[in-house]
Amino acid sequence: MKKLSIAVMISGSGSNLQSIIDACNAGSLPAAVKLVISDRKDAFGLERAKKNGIPAEFIDPSHFGGREEHETACAASIDREECKLICLAGYMRLVTGWFVGKYSGRLLNIHPSLLPSFPGAHAHRDVLAYGAKVSGCTVHFVDENMDSGPVIIQSAVKVLEGDTEETLGKRVLEQEHKAYPEAIKLFAEGRLIVKGRKVTVDTII
Amino acid sequence: MKKLSIAVMISGSGSNLQSIIDACNAGSLPAAVKLVISDRKDAFGLERAKKNGIPAEFIDPSHFGGREEHETACAASIDREECKLICLAGYMRLVTGWFVGKYSGRLLNIHPSLLPSFPGAHAHRDVLAYGAKVSGCTVHFVDENMDSGPVIIQSAVKVLEGDTEETLGKRVLEQEHKAYPEAIKLFAEGRLIVKGRKVTVDTII
Repeated sequence: MKKLSIAVMISGSGSNLQSIIDACNAGSLPAAVKLVISDRKDAFGLERAKKNGIPAEFIDPSHFGGREEHETACAASIDREECKLICLAGYMRLVTGWFVGKYSGRLLNIHPSLLPSFPGAHAHRDVLAYGAKVSGCTVHFVDENMDSGPVIIQSAVKVLEGDTEETLGKRVLEQEHKAYPEAIKLFAEGRLIVKGRKVTVDTII
Repeated sequence: MKKLSIAVMISGSGSNLQSIIDACNAGSLPAAVKLVISDRKDAFGLERAKKNGIPAEFIDPSHFGGREEHETACAASIDREECKLICLAGYMRLVTGWFVGKYSGRLLNIHPSLLPSFPGAHAHRDVLAYGAKVSGCTVHFVDENMDSGPVIIQSAVKVLEGDTEETLGKRVLEQEHKAYPEAIKLFAEGRLIVKGRKVTVDTII
């Protein structure tokens, strides 16, 4: 099977990027990360990419007149590397309808809550403020709304008494590191069937 | 320990009522259901109550001029039986701020989803339409908003491929039958500490 070429877009530490790279290197994922794009210069994920010999680009949003112009530059890199799947992994920027349309059906995101609960940039804080007893993570196709789009995988995590954003975030992250490579594997194997909002997994015959 | 007197308000089958009665009878819950109120004449839960020797009242909303008048009649029965905890269990009627205020801190509800996701009367249908991969149930204190209020217990349930409202509902119900008696037990033991939206469980010394 030809390996799936992936672009990963990040804004920060890139621990989900690392889990994807690790799964590719371990051979458990028939894919290869061909490009890492960050919208922040100091994102540690850029270092992770370089350490693994993966082209890493900081594409500075402030150099462009608007979101689409910035995304056009990102897309030029993605298309140059012939990436077939684009994974947002802690990418803290809303993508436009243009970008979603261009990569329709091959743009994924991971979010650290059980969507539709607690969308947005402060999921763990919001979970704790609500007093929820269960949280988790969601891997989903991206549509034009924030933290929306058809759900591929969700994993539940118990909220414990005394949890802080940090302790809860750490346990959810452990599940993220399993869920994202698993979802990408299903995509790479061509097993994801999307009908409206529903994603089902084709059985291998 | 003196047993906690409970009133259970229902609209239908009353399977959660049954799980509470069973836990009381088994001695695992230091409580006794002293009254069952239904807003529907044909609610099977009324039969369950009678079989267990529990006073069961159909209080017909159509006999009253408004919601508060109906609730005033319910409250008269609750207070006559000296019930200290009121458990909504499949009670399909919104309660008023008056009722919530009167029984503040001792009015519970169970909802068949992981709130704040999928509130309302068709949780399983909404879960399936969204394509969520994890659902569950929530036991919470009731406030003036629908399916809101501080959360006591949540249990997660996987959504399976091919699930219908019925099959998902059945698996969630199994968790409800554990979660509601467990939450009531914590209440009966005086161990629930509510601060704002957060509910924590006091450890027994």
